[in-house]
Order: sequence, then C-alpha cells, then structure tokens
Amino acid sequence: MGKVALIVGAGPGLGASLAKAFAQDGYDVALASRRSGSLSELCSEIGAKQYICDASDAESVENLFTQVDDDLGPPDLVIYNAGAYTRGPIAELDLDVVRATLSVNGWGALVVAQAAARRMIPRGSGTMLFTGASAGLKGFAQSAPFAMGKFALRGLCQSLARELAPKNIHVAHIVLDGVVFRPERGEPYANADTALHPDEIARTYLELSRQHNSAWTYEIELRPYVESF
Amino acid sequence: MGKVALIVGAGPGLGASLAKAFAQDGYDVALASRRSGSLSELCSEIGAKQYICDASDAESVENLFTQVDDDLGPPDLVIYNAGAYTRGPIAELDLDVVRATLSVNGWGALVVAQAAARRMIPRGSGTMLFTGASAGLKGFAQSAPFAMGKFALRGLCQSLARELAPKNIHVAHIVLDGVVFRPERGEPYANADTALHPDEIARTYLELSRQHNSAWTYEIELRPYVESF
Amino acid sequence: MGKVALIVGAGPGLGASLAKAFAQDGYDVALASRRSGSLSELCSEIGAKQYICDASDAESVENLFTQVDDDLGPPDLVIYNAGAYTRGPIAELDLDVVRATLSVNGWGALVVAQAAARRMIPRGSGTMLFTGASAGLKGFAQSAPFAMGKFALRGLCQSLARELAPKNIHVAHIVLDGVVFRPERGEPYANADTALHPDEIARTYLELSRQHNSAWTYEIELRPYVESF
Amino acid sequence: MGKVALIVGAGPGLGASLAKAFAQDGYDVALASRRSGSLSELCSEIGAKQYICDASDAESVENLFTQVDDDLGPPDLVIYNAGAYTRGPIAELDLDVVRATLSVNGWGALVVAQAAARRMIPRGSGTMLFTGASAGLKGFAQSAPFAMGKFALRGLCQSLARELAPKNIHVAHIVLDGVVFRPERGEPYANADTALHPDEIARTYLELSRQHNSAWTYEIELRPYVESF
Repeated sequence: MGKVALIVGAGPGLGASLAKAFAQDGYDVALASRRSGSLSELCSEIGAKQYICDASDAESVENLFTQVDDDLGPPDLVIYNAGAYTRGPIAELDLDVVRATLSVNGWGALVVAQAAARRMIPRGSGTMLFTGASAGLKGFAQSAPFAMGKFALRGLCQSLARELAPKNIHVAHIVLDGVVFRPERGEPYANADTALHPDEIARTYLELSRQHNSAWTYEIELRPYVESF
Repeated sequence: MGKVALIVGAGPGLGASLAKAFAQDGYDVALASRRSGSLSELCSEIGAKQYICDASDAESVENLFTQVDDDLGPPDLVIYNAGAYTRGPIAELDLDVVRATLSVNGWGALVVAQAAARRMIPRGSGTMLFTGASAGLKGFAQSAPFAMGKFALRGLCQSLARELAPKNIHVAHIVLDGVVFRPERGEPYANADTALHPDEIARTYLELSRQHNSAWTYEIELRPYVESF
Repeated sequence: MGKVALIVGAGPGLGASLAKAFAQDGYDVALASRRSGSLSELCSEIGAKQYICDASDAESVENLFTQVDDDLGPPDLVIYNAGAYTRGPIAELDLDVVRATLSVNGWGALVVAQAAARRMIPRGSGTMLFTGASAGLKGFAQSAPFAMGKFALRGLCQSLARELAPKNIHVAHIVLDGVVFRPERGEPYANADTALHPDEIARTYLELSRQHNSAWTYEIELRPYVESF
Repeated sequence: MGKVALIVGAGPGLGASLAKAFAQDGYDVALASRRSGSLSELCSEIGAKQYICDASDAESVENLFTQVDDDLGPPDLVIYNAGAYTRGPIAELDLDVVRATLSVNGWGALVVAQAAARRMIPRGSGTMLFTGASAGLKGFAQSAPFAMGKFALRGLCQSLARELAPKNIHVAHIVLDGVVFRPERGEPYANADTALHPDEIARTYLELSRQHNSAWTYEIELRPYVESF
C-alpha cells in the first residue's frame, strides 16, 4: 500500500502544483478545499480524491481525517496550505474579518496539526509542511491581522518541530516571500519574471519530504531572485 | 489636566507594580481586570480607578475605553498586560482551552490596540506597551498555544510600530524572559534571586514611556541575570 | 572612591553625550580615542581624563586599561563605541579597507571586552555596553564589510552576555537604527527631525547601567520615530 | 564544455561528500584545501583537480581562482566550506588563535566571494554556497571567536544575497546545527544516530544549486532529528 499525502487548502496555484508533484512521486493524494468544484479536473487527471473541509472548524477537520483514514489510510504527509489575507489600518479593521483571518492562518493549522500528530505519533513517522509567508517573520504596517496569523503559524511550527522531531516526525515551515504566479489574476501575479512559480515551490516541498532525518530542515524561505528583502 | 494611563490586565504582581510606577510618575491611572476585588486596596492607595473588562471581548473593551474617556479622558498610555498560559503535548490539547489562550494573548491585544489607536491617532501622540514573553520569539516544545499567542502578539506589535511610529505613537513590545517574582505562588516564583522583580520591570516600562521620539525602542527583553537564553 | 566609566571610541557626537551623561551620574570618566585633541575641551568641562588608544591594537588596549587602573581604578563600566563604515559593491572592495573595518567593528570590541572581563570577573560585577547598528541584524546590499563587522560584534555580545551575566556582569548591545544627529556633517546628519539625538541615546545607555540584575536587557534598539524598519 | 564547481575547504567529511555529489551531477570539480595529500585518492576517483590554498590569504585565493580559470574555466559554483573552531572563556582567549579563527570563518569567505563575484557578475549567473553553523545565529557562552566568525559569515551572505540575487547569482547560507558524522574522530562525531550525515548535507547543497531563480532560498538550516534547538 502506497504513501498518503493530504493537502489542506488545495486551490488552484500552489495547491495544484503540490498535488501534481506528490502524485508524480507516488503518493495517493487527498485534496481538501473549502469549496467543491475547483479541483475536480485536476483530481481526475492525477487520480486524487477530493474532500470539502473548513480548516478552521475542528469538527470539519476531524471528519476530513476520518474520511481519509477510511479511503486511503492515515496520511504520511500533511500539508497545510490554507491562508487568508487581510490588510488595512489598525483603526479601520473590521473585527469579524480579522477573526476569520486569524482562524485560517493560525487556528486551522493547529487543528490540522493535532489531527495529524494523533496519527503520526503512534506510527513513529510522518511529515508536516506548513505554507508560511514573510509576514510571519516581519510584521508590516497596515497588516496586523496577516502578521498575527502568520506569526502564530510560525510559533506553532517551531513548537511542533521541537516536540515532534525527536519522535521522527518532520515539521517544516516554508516561508514564501513574494506572490505566487497566477496569470489569471493580473498583476503582480501575472508577471512570470517576478512571481514565485508554483511548480518550483512544490519542488522544494517534495525535497523537504525526502530529507533524511540526520539532516532535517525546520524552516526554509523561497523568494524570486528579484525580490528585495 | 493630567496624563492618563490605562493598564489592561492589572492583577497582582506586574500589574500592581505598573500601576504604582505610573501613578508615582503623575498619571491618572485606570486599572482593568477580568474580575473585581483583587486590586481595590491598591486603587485606594494610589488613587486609581478600577474597571472590569474581558479583554478578549470587543464590546467589553469598547465599554472600558468609553468609561475611561468619560472618567479620566482618553488614555495617553495604554499597557496590554493580559496573558494566559497553556501547555501540553499537541495531541492532547483541549481545543477550547487553546482558543481561550489565543484569545487573551493575541486577539485581545488587537482589540485593545484598535481602541487605543482610534483615540491616539487624532491626537497625534500616545504610547502603547505590550507585555510579551520569550515564547513570542521561540516556540518551545509542548507549548504550541502559548507560542502561537505570543508570536501573534509580537507580529501585532511589529505591524503597529511600523504603522503608528510615523504618527508619533510609540509602540513597544516588552519580552519577559523568566518568571515574575510572586512569593505567594511558591517556586519558581518565590525565588527572589532567579525571578524578575515586578518593580524593576515596571521601571523599564516607565523609561520606555519617557523616551524621546528621536530614539524610540520597539522591542526590549528583560531577564534575570541567572536566566539561560 | 567613585565609580569609573571608560568610553572607548569617544569622538564628538555620541561619545561626548555618553561622557557627559555618565559624568553627571557621578562616574569618574576616562575617554579613549584614536587621536588626541578633539575632546580636550569636553574633558576639562566634565573633569574627564583623556587617553589615546587604537582599539584594534591589543597592546594599545592593554596600555589603556593599565593607565586607567592606575589613574582612576579598574572601570566599573566600559563602553565600546568605536566603529568604522565601509561600503561598496563586493567586486570593488579594497581589501585593506575591509580589513580595517572588520578590525574596528569586531576585533577591537573583543580585545576591549577581554581586558574589561579580566578586571570585572574577579570583582564580581561590572557593565559592558557596545554600540551596534541595524547592519548587525540585517546585511544590506553593497555593505558586506560593515555587515560582517557589526554581525561579529553582535555575536560577541551574545556570547559575552551568556557567559558573563551569571557572573553578575551586565553586557548589552545597543542597536542604533538611523544616523546620529551631527549638524556639522550636513544631511542626513543635520536633520534634527529624522536623526537620533545623541543625548537621548546616552539616556538609554545610562538607564541600562542602572538596571537591577533581576531584569537585565541584553539587546535594545533605538530608532527615530520616522525611520522605516 | 561542462559546468565547473570550486570547493574551498575540501577536507574529508563534508568536503568529500560535496565533491562526490557535484561530480556525479556532471560538474568538473576543483578542490582547494590548505594542505595537500588528504584528498588525492578522492580526486582520482571522481576526476577532480586538487589545489592548495590558504583561504585567509588574499594572494593565495587569487592564485587559486586564476589556476582554476586556466585549468577548467571560471567556476559556475563556488562553495566556501572552510572553518575553524575556537572556544574558551573570554578572559583566557589567546588573541592569536582568535585572529586565526576570525580569519578562516569570516575574512576568507569575503576574499573568496570577491574572486567569485568578479567572475560571475560579467557572466550574469552563478551560485555561491557558504557552510555556516548555528553559532552564526546564536552566540553561545565561552564561544566568542566562533560566534564572531560565523555571525560575520552570515552578515556577509545576507549582504551578498541582497546585492547579487538581482544579478542572477544565487547566494545561500547553509546552517549546520550539529556535528558532522566522522567516525574516525570518536564521540560525538561517531554517533550515526545523532550526527549530520555528510552525504545528506551534500544533497541539500546540490538541491540548492538546482533551484529555479523564481524560488531561491537564501538560508537553510540542517539538523539531526534528535538535536535540540
């Protein structure tokens, strides 16, 4: 029986590239997104199974993992790729929008990590990869909710890495510094010279999943060569 | 009319030391805590006003600020000193407890910051001080919720500092690395040699509030001389 | 007999402000600079003694400390305020200039720290303050030598803090993020609104020297409110 | 004509693993070490050329690059893998040993980087990889010279990355957190379970050299799964 990869937050763009990369590497792939439909063509193409899940809802996440357990077996690899972006001056932020942003970027990652850990710890192995952002290392002006969510994600990943690495579970935080190439979205996403190519990002996720446990990476950043930092 | 200091999260220990320090410096002091009673003696002693507020509840925070506006005038200085600590292996965390931890350490700080910013921006001055922890810079094993909350707090503070400093509002994040001396709590809090003395911490808050805007500090850590780091 | 402060790198600007601040606080002040003359008026004014020392020359530093020992007694406080700035594209850097830059910013600090430690460790107390720069935390383009020197200084300070704090010796690294107000130098140094005021910087050095050992700061940054970071 | 890789600091252990990895990937490999002899067998085996070079001596480095230019062509990839370790209490450090440590860990890297940059900038491409250590991010007690050297190296790498990435030259700083497996050295180097395996480290260097310029990594750390951090 093959290895199982579960990708939470599997929209077009990076989610699709990750799905293809791990399917090509021999994984049975489960894709979870908040809404149905967007990935059905991709799923047929690569033989992946699609699930609906709201990552910020603990019950929905538990259902997702139970279904994947039943359909494919417990995941060897879990990628948390969900995210939401909110910005604005502190004085004008809508608190409901802030709450939703924190929920997807931070809280949902913890809920997914808990479900993954409960399956990986007894088996003594596993990999968890989390999609972060440069906002998790530097809080930019007028970007408090995104900074809080991505900082929280980084804090979670550090804590998980320190707790789980000695249990042979590889946790890594991938810091994307730049926009991901998505030509359908217009500028700056459509600029192939200055955006991160999702297949190239996925290549690094794959390489992380292959690292030997004598030389694990906890954190790695990826940025276009023209990006200032 | 005097300067007004509002301290949110004003229990015994550091909260009391902060209250005394700013009262002695000439501030009219407002103390907000989740429960009544604990500080009434101190309030009489230093002439401070006491308020009940749940910092993680936006409506409660709005009521607090409105009352302080009416009683003392809009605060020149706001200290966010609320915090909650939760630890445990990722697989065993109670999600309700996690949610409460994130709420007090992260969310509440944003809610308070927003109310403060709305008053300080029009006046073109103000100071916001946030009590952080070393867990906001390093996510320790079996400490995911606390790491997430304190990382989120740091992300918030960085974002606020970058947005508000040019508006002449001083935002600072104080990183406490160690336990605060609280003899009534037993070890390690009762060890005067290895714990942070709250009056000494308060001294640094006071000094931060006095910095000239040509030489502001955004972040400062405080640790006992014997603390390893 | 009074406390003794030795300031290495005591030119006009910050050096002079530090000298005045510690003299006013009751220290017997020793000022060391590479060239004579520039501070003689100040020395008369505040009753400080002046020494010539090349901080990057170990023998010169040893002579300085021996003279101060004889004249004033072993220093309770040592400030390393020497620095040199070099920038340029990596391909065009003159290696002799690079070497001199590294020598003043990094090497000299270690040599001075060693002489100070040898006097403070047996006495079981002391304070060492090092003037750093934002270049010690972020290596900017076309600024390799300055980045290397200031990074090295920060590495030194971290190591010293971890070694010496438990011996009751306070080591702090002060990160100046911005230019110091020096009207005689023209822009950007002459802009009182956007430069760091040296007397305000000195105030923070003084406050650090007064911190109780239950709440020591190892690192603090200072920046004008308008400085982006 | 093939791609050329120059590895400076090519002793047994990681140097040998790097040489093999890049030779297997099709590079013409040049190995530079301070002393002759140690790698001659490896050189025959993988068809690499061996050079003698003292990386901290600018003239020696210039000779090395000129010889490699002549023998193999200008290098497409340069790895700086030289390093020296010194530790001890600050008060007892031998300054001559300190100077040598700083020279190899910091200065030599700049000298090599300059020679590499002068060849890569005109060609509009190239890769520079620098072997760092956790001591470059955290200055440990009784380890001032190593901290200074590795901090300086990191500052150099950051500055180079910011200057050279937009010129299509990939600079990466690899942070080794742990000891490299070298069974001939005894404990802790001989413990295959807790040491970094050099072939696995080399795998990451190789992967970095293959990254697409839309998703470059500037810094990556590698540590054994059991290493606390």
